[in-house]
Amino acid sequence: MSTAYELDRKHVFHSWSAQAEITPMVIAAARGSYVWDDEDRRYLDFSSQLVFTNIGHQHPRVVAAIKEQAERLCTVAPQFANEQRAQAAELIAGIAPDGFEKVFFTNGGADANEHAIRMARLHTGRFKVLSAYRSYHGGTQTAINVTGDPRRWANDTATAGTVHFFGPFLYRSEFHASTEEEECERALAHLRRTIEAEGPATIAAIILETIPGTAGIFAPPPGYLAGVRELCDQHGIVMILDEVMAGFGRAGSWLALDLYDVVPDLITFAKGVNSGYVPLGGVVIRDPIAATFDHTPYPGGLTYSGHPLACAAAVATIHAMRDEGIVDNAARLGREVFGPGLAEIASRHACVGEVRGVGAFWALDLVVDQGTRELLPPAGLNDVVAACKAGGLLPFANTNRIHVVPPCTMSDDEAREGLAILDEALKAGDVHAA
Amino acid sequence: MSTAYELDRKHVFHSWSAQAEITPMVIAAARGSYVWDDEDRRYLDFSSQLVFTNIGHQHPRVVAAIKEQAERLCTVAPQFANEQRAQAAELIAGIAPDGFEKVFFTNGGADANEHAIRMARLHTGRFKVLSAYRSYHGGTQTAINVTGDPRRWANDTATAGTVHFFGPFLYRSEFHASTEEEECERALAHLRRTIEAEGPATIAAIILETIPGTAGIFAPPPGYLAGVRELCDQHGIVMILDEVMAGFGRAGSWLALDLYDVVPDLITFAKGVNSGYVPLGGVVIRDPIAATFDHTPYPGGLTYSGHPLACAAAVATIHAMRDEGIVDNAARLGREVFGPGLAEIASRHACVGEVRGVGAFWALDLVVDQGTRELLPPAGLNDVVAACKAGGLLPFANTNRIHVVPPCTMSDDEAREGLAILDEALKAGDVHAA
Ligand SMILES: Cc1ncc(COP(=O)(O)O)c(C=O)c1O
Ligand SMILES: Cc1ncc(COP(=O)(O)O)c(C=O)c1O
Repeated sequence: MSTAYELDRKHVFHSWSAQAEITPMVIAAARGSYVWDDEDRRYLDFSSQLVFTNIGHQHPRVVAAIKEQAERLCTVAPQFANEQRAQAAELIAGIAPDGFEKVFFTNGGADANEHAIRMARLHTGRFKVLSAYRSYHGGTQTAINVTGDPRRWANDTATAGTVHFFGPFLYRSEFHASTEEEECERALAHLRRTIEAEGPATIAAIILETIPGTAGIFAPPPGYLAGVRELCDQHGIVMILDEVMAGFGRAGSWLALDLYDVVPDLITFAKGVNSGYVPLGGVVIRDPIAATFDHTPYPGGLTYSGHPLACAAAVATIHAMRDEGIVDNAARLGREVFGPGLAEIASRHACVGEVRGVGAFWALDLVVDQGTRELLPPAGLNDVVAACKAGGLLPFANTNRIHVVPPCTMSDDEAREGLAILDEALKAGDVHAA
Repeated sequence: MSTAYELDRKHVFHSWSAQAEITPMVIAAARGSYVWDDEDRRYLDFSSQLVFTNIGHQHPRVVAAIKEQAERLCTVAPQFANEQRAQAAELIAGIAPDGFEKVFFTNGGADANEHAIRMARLHTGRFKVLSAYRSYHGGTQTAINVTGDPRRWANDTATAGTVHFFGPFLYRSEFHASTEEEECERALAHLRRTIEAEGPATIAAIILETIPGTAGIFAPPPGYLAGVRELCDQHGIVMILDEVMAGFGRAGSWLALDLYDVVPDLITFAKGVNSGYVPLGGVVIRDPIAATFDHTPYPGGLTYSGHPLACAAAVATIHAMRDEGIVDNAARLGREVFGPGLAEIASRHACVGEVRGVGAFWALDLVVDQGTRELLPPAGLNDVVAACKAGGLLPFANTNRIHVVPPCTMSDDEAREGLAILDEALKAGDVHAA
């Protein structure tokens, strides 16, 4: 047992965990697509940690930018102007669609969504927020309220103003649909009915992950987001797209919304914006909403809004992603390696019900029966995870799924190496399947 | 106009501001107790930015630690164990009273309070949270709800479970008291009545800044916090002390609660823990509350919990503060320089109603009339701030007050230099006073 492990067990209270029932792996080093534990065992990182090191571990340009900025100026308060903050805002506004000039910086994804919802409420003068059951939007109170996944339940003591609905997800359709078109149409009808039944004039915002991530990575069918946009326009509802996980290269595009014909009113981001090298998140604000706060103070803020060190890391990350074609690499990996590779794997394993994804953003939906699509039980998933780790692969696992979400910088050889380990590990899942 | 300023005005959406009505000063460099604008004008920093650079600007040991950690390992996900995270947790637990073994890390002060309140709610199975009107606890929804200051009002759309009461503050007593003892006794009676009237069994927590900061820096009278502790014990209420601003040296002690004979159940921190060089906050958890989540998962988390770069900065900050006697320096500055120096200043200015504080944590309560204690109007405060800046001093101003909250590392000469500028600048306030 290393000192780090012992100290961790004694003093570190971990997210989302029963503290006495976890045995966290120590991560001692990382580089590119690999991490090392405290016994110098190497793992290929198919998780990007929590799907955020899009640029890989210890990217030299980002590390250099952090060191340079640390030497120059670590921090200034949010009421001042600062070069790194201003440059990061310019670059991020440039990545958003036209008509999004202003960026409000936060420390992560949860507070980005908190502030986006606040802006929507104040802009509309309305209170309710609609969000999808299959979603994750963060851990602070409003963010966890709009989250749909079961981690919300224990926090449902204070949920004022949140209403959940079902989004489109054909493989596990809530709408008895059998084609993408039907799923899309029925999901939009369901949302329309929910809006009508809640009272359109009471609804400030609809918040959606452009491509739901933690809930299972299902890209919405063509037309769905455009349909949501139309409903929002009809009723004066603010459309918030949460790009915290799907954005900044993950989906093989700068923003996942680039894959669709849709322009929201607010875009939230974190994670990939600087690959989490320094905590950073934020809201990109469409001009009419920004204008609401031109002469009325925006009633929100935080001490580290636009932190220079975090912003310097974002500037370096975005430049490196551009110069090195990292977004294209993610798109190509999806098209040429993960798409065909995972399809082949699926064809070989009884426990793989569906493979879906795009770019560096893939899910294997594991089942005990491909006909009934009954979820692989936790024991089955645990066996697959253990087999991956034993093979030297760090996977991302959730409920009944393995997500393949490596750094967007991954090489074809690394990706194939990881797929081979996963292929082997899935045999441990097949044991549980029919 | 520098490019930084122009880009800022175009793309940066600022905290707590009417965006079209601000002209933010550019900060281009900082070292020790000074910052420089983009025209190379130097200012003595009497604000510590937003009262967080307790160790001064660009402290060489903290900068070196950040650069070293950036080179080694910028980030790992919260589910893993990591050396820097574990060391920071050990050091912070060591600063808290005995019986606080575990630390939950967040990105800042607001989410620290969000999670502390969640822990209290789940530990007690109760919902309501009591907090002081004169308080600031952060900008996310639950944190701004428990905040008392007027920045809360625009967010009072969703306030489920928050109840405000008045704390002790003799200079502007809510209780018609004329001595500290009377103020203390009456404030405790008021809190007791509020608890009784709300229903003790409905109250999860009472949250208090140990020494209220943004609201005006008033150390509670002897016996008040012990009295609150007693009320909490009587009714099974969790006592949360918010040390985000008052902690880590600011009050001339490691934690402000060290100045009192009180042990809370949860302690929240941010700012001074690493002087904001990298965003970091958290909750120090008393053992019985931590034990609640030994076998029941804690339903909260965030991607950057225990961020290695932020934790490495905290480790270096705490070591430097220890080795260099920085906490003692703050205490001595308060006793020998600010205490006597500000008392002298007060005696010379009609606009200074009261001077109060401890360590590197002082407020000048400015008035138009020392008898009525009527607040100096905004125009008067603005004139004082402008005069400070013209004299080369960066002050912290709020409502009708100037706070003297410099780095805890400040030298006596710098402190005296700043007091001399402030002395001169207050003449601009006297013009508005009787
Ligand atoms: C889509 C989405 N939104 C928001 C968040 C919350 O971000 P953070 O953990 O930085 O608060 C996450 C985190 O996984 C996410 O995936
Ligand atoms: C006492 C107190 N609590 C909480 C906060 C919120 O901290 P943050 O701005 O890092 O969210 C502040 C910030 O000024 C504070 O002074």
